[in-house]
Amino acid sequence: MDKRIEISILLDIYGVLLTEKQRDIMDLYFNNDLSLAEISENTNTSRQAIHDLIKRCERLLSEYESKLCLMKRNTELHRMKKSVDEHLDKLLEKDLDIDSKDRINNIRYLINDLN
Amino acid sequence: MDKRIEISILLDIYGVLLTEKQRDIMDLYFNNDLSLAEISENTNTSRQAIHDLIKRCERLLSEYESKLCLMKRNTELHRMKKSVDEHLDKLLEKDLDIDSKDRINNIRYLINDLN
Repeated sequence: MDKRIEISILLDIYGVLLTEKQRDIMDLYFNNDLSLAEISENTNTSRQAIHDLIKRCERLLSEYESKLCLMKRNTELHRMKKSVDEHLDKLLEKDLDIDSKDRINNIRYLINDLN
Repeated sequence: MDKRIEISILLDIYGVLLTEKQRDIMDLYFNNDLSLAEISENTNTSRQAIHDLIKRCERLLSEYESKLCLMKRNTELHRMKKSVDEHLDKLLEKDLDIDSKDRINNIRYLINDLN
């Protein structure tokens, strides 16, 4: 996976564990594509300090993922949903009674509600 | 939920985010039921320091849950698995072809594999 995309996903998951300032700067850099110089100007902070903050946050986010594995878990969840959905589609193609169809639709609803 | 049980569950989920020492002491207190005096003696640390560490870690664990909601998510996942399982059981009671039964068993396998 592209590193910028990966950091952006990790930021979405673990951003709540950063300070507001860290989160804001990471958001400007990774989601709004501002340059270090632009962030430096906008936040009245030296370019070097912004650079250091970003590097430190990247390490923090990677550490959280290595410990809690939530990005990995989300990927597995997404894959599971897709596979279950395919099975449910195939089941619905069968000649089933109304109760069975209802149950299949309920299963789909329960699964899609997971996040 | 009983507070000790809740802390024990949170420790299981977020313990990886504590330091080794914090985790060990929380484990002795909440999972092995040692008293403050016993932990103090075993770790050569004052009773007051152990008390403060436990209170601080309780706050940390609650903060992690308020931000990441993983305990809540696990409870929802457990509830979803139970509901889906019931629907699958009912579906398997029907007069289905082998392919349908295989798909239902596959769905069960995929769901149970989630954590």
